[in-house]
Formats: sequence, structure tokens, C-alpha cells
Amino acid sequence: MSHTYEFPRPALAVDCVVFAIDEGALKVLLVQRGAEPFASDWALPGGFVRLEETTDQAALRELREETGLSQVFLEQLYTFSSLERDPRERVVSVAHYALVRPAAVQGGTDASQARWFALSEVPPLAFDHDGILTMALERLRGKVRYQPLGFELLPPKFTLGQLQRLYEAILGRELDKRNFRRAFLRMGILEELDEMQDNVSHRPSRLYRFHRAEYKRLVKRGFNFEI
Amino acid sequence: MSHTYEFPRPALAVDCVVFAIDEGALKVLLVQRGAEPFASDWALPGGFVRLEETTDQAALRELREETGLSQVFLEQLYTFSSLERDPRERVVSVAHYALVRPAAVQGGTDASQARWFALSEVPPLAFDHDGILTMALERLRGKVRYQPLGFELLPPKFTLGQLQRLYEAILGRELDKRNFRRAFLRMGILEELDEMQDNVSHRPSRLYRFHRAEYKRLVKRGFNFEI
Repeated sequence: MSHTYEFPRPALAVDCVVFAIDEGALKVLLVQRGAEPFASDWALPGGFVRLEETTDQAALRELREETGLSQVFLEQLYTFSSLERDPRERVVSVAHYALVRPAAVQGGTDASQARWFALSEVPPLAFDHDGILTMALERLRGKVRYQPLGFELLPPKFTLGQLQRLYEAILGRELDKRNFRRAFLRMGILEELDEMQDNVSHRPSRLYRFHRAEYKRLVKRGFNFEI
Repeated sequence: MSHTYEFPRPALAVDCVVFAIDEGALKVLLVQRGAEPFASDWALPGGFVRLEETTDQAALRELREETGLSQVFLEQLYTFSSLERDPRERVVSVAHYALVRPAAVQGGTDASQARWFALSEVPPLAFDHDGILTMALERLRGKVRYQPLGFELLPPKFTLGQLQRLYEAILGRELDKRNFRRAFLRMGILEELDEMQDNVSHRPSRLYRFHRAEYKRLVKRGFNFEI
């Protein structure tokens, strides 16, 4: 590290890619910009980092201010620093991403300018946000291959069909039912309950829950989920 | 993103964790600091980001200036932003990491203040660099589990013993020879040559080379290497 710092410094920002699954589709939370540049365009929620906060704290604050969402478990994605990404001045952005419960979608947001978009309906975004969204999506889809997923997203008791639809929504494609079930059961993190669904119009399916300790262990250890 | 930016801004820096394997041990490249803070302590090479460069470019420039290393393939690791990480002022650092060929170690560095340290001999580092090094090591060791490794690090023709020692140096533990070979051969990226080592004092071993296309495919696709 240099000992003095006399250069003008880039501004530092954060951006947030928040995904949720709603009606079987992966959605992303966007805000409509009010001012230039990119006025009235849609963008990822985000903003500048203040001196008294970490980048994680800045991301959570901006998300709360701009979308009303709170208590989101954000993970750092990547820091974007290309020279032309903001027409105003040099801005480096630390991007974050999260996958939240569908309840957060149905509840809507406090911010009138924030809206959930199905991936297929995302308009061209401001700044380099298309690229940030693409990387977040790749990261999420990659993660499904080496970590189990669903613990924070499904109700405590769920059917294998619900679990499969969760994966299908994230991966954006249909999965073979038998292969999916076989591969998932092999992980050893599902507990078959002596209970069936009720209040359903179709034939009730068996309920499962995650074996919490095994699930956590597998998150840590990783695996290769060939789906 | 906010529309105006009136707050004082954090400084933006980069740091580089450069690993190499030398004499069967994983080593890391450090520089000794000349000035306060942490004067005479060892630290990761790094420095402040200039307005006209990306964070990747800043990392390569600092690495060249401080250690003489060039043409290193750096990957972004994580952005560190805790409030107290630099006693001078608020500095956010985008950390990078790389694993380079042993030749880079033997060649030494141009910078008199730069030195390679075996992991077991790394002194307490300046700033939060111990934490950055720990995360880089976890990332490198994690990567071995889902990507093949060795293409850029071994000579074009190598023995299975050399390959195993590379993995052992990175993982910091001995591996079972039969299990390692079986697991590695199963990847389908090794081509057995009709050639043996020469100029060795022990019984010559068979030479192998990587099947380039399959190797690249596996880097992209990922797998689970249970070692």
C-alpha cells in the first residue's frame, strides 16, 4: 500500500440484486430512477457508501430506503469498476445479491417506485446494471449446483413438488421429476414426515422437512448436484 | 442510486494475494512497509486506485511496482470495508488473488522489499491483511474441490507424483496416493503418454499431459473432487 494518497478518488457505491420466487417464476426487484442520468429508466436499488458504514451496511440501507425491504440476507457478488459505467463521474460499485422469500414479494414494497419484474420482463437497465444482473443470476444458478437450497425459502413442511418448482424457477427450465427426486434424496438432508398435505384439491402429497444439521453441514461442505 | 452525492467518500484501494508453489510448499508474496502506519511490518502488495484505472488494472500496477511481478492472472476475491481497517482514514480495499508458476518464485522479484514466505512462516500482517490472506487461502482450497488445477502450473508433460504434490502443497496435507490417482483419472482430463521421465535418479515414472479441451470444459462445468 502506498504511503500517501494524493490522487482524486473514485466514488464508491453499492448495488443490490434481490431475487424472489413468485408464482413459479424468478423475479428481481427494480427501482425507477427519478433524475438524470437514465431518468425514468429502471435500475437496481443502490447508492453511495457513506464514511460511517461498511459496504454491506450501505447496501442494506439503500435497499430499505429505496424499496422498503429489510432483514434481507445479502451476499457480496462482485465489485464493478469499468471506467465508463457512470456518465457523471468515476463510480466503483460493490454489487450484492440475495434470494428472499415469496412473502416479501406478495407484501409489496413501501417504496412507490420499486417493483418486482419477472426475469423475462426486465427492461434494459440503467448504468451497467444489465451486466450486474446477469452475473448475479449466474452466481445464483451456479450455487444451486454445489449447495442445497430451500431452507430459507420453503415453508417448514413442504412437498417434493414444491421443492422441484423452486429449483425450476431458479434454473429457468423444467427438470425431470424422477431424476430430481432421486438426486435430492441422495443428499440425505430431507426427512420424510408421516404427514400428508391437506386442504388441496388434488391428491395430497407427502410432506417433507429439511434435516437442519445435515443441511447446514452440506452448505459448508458443498457437493455436486447434477441436475 | 442516489442522484446527488454530497458525503465525504472512502478511499478505494486494492490488495493482492499472490500464491506460488515452491519446493512442495505454498508460498505467498509479501512486501515490507517503509512508512507508518505499520512501518516495517509485512503486508500484501497493494495501493490506492487511480481515477483512470479499473480495480484489476490498479492491482496489476501495484503488483508490478511493488514486487516486479507482471502478467499475473489475478481474480477478484472480495471487497473489504470494515470501518477500522486503516488507522489513517476510511479505506475500502478490493482484494485479488492469484496462483502463479514456481518460476516466478525462483526468478525472485525486482523489488528489494518483496519476499516469498512459506505459509507457516508468515508473520502477523499489517492492516486486516491476515484476514484477507485467510480468505484467499480458503478460496484457493475451495476451488480445488470443484475445478481442475494444474494446467498453468505444471510443465506440459508431468508425472502423477508431480500432480499430487501440487495438490498437497495447496491443501497443506498429504493425500492418499491411490485415492488421488483414481479420483483424478476419473475426471477424464489426463492423457497418458507413451513416454517416461528421463534424467531422474529414481525409477522413471510415466508422463501425462492434460487433455486441453476436456480440461477447459471441466473448468467451466465444475465437478466435485472428493479428496
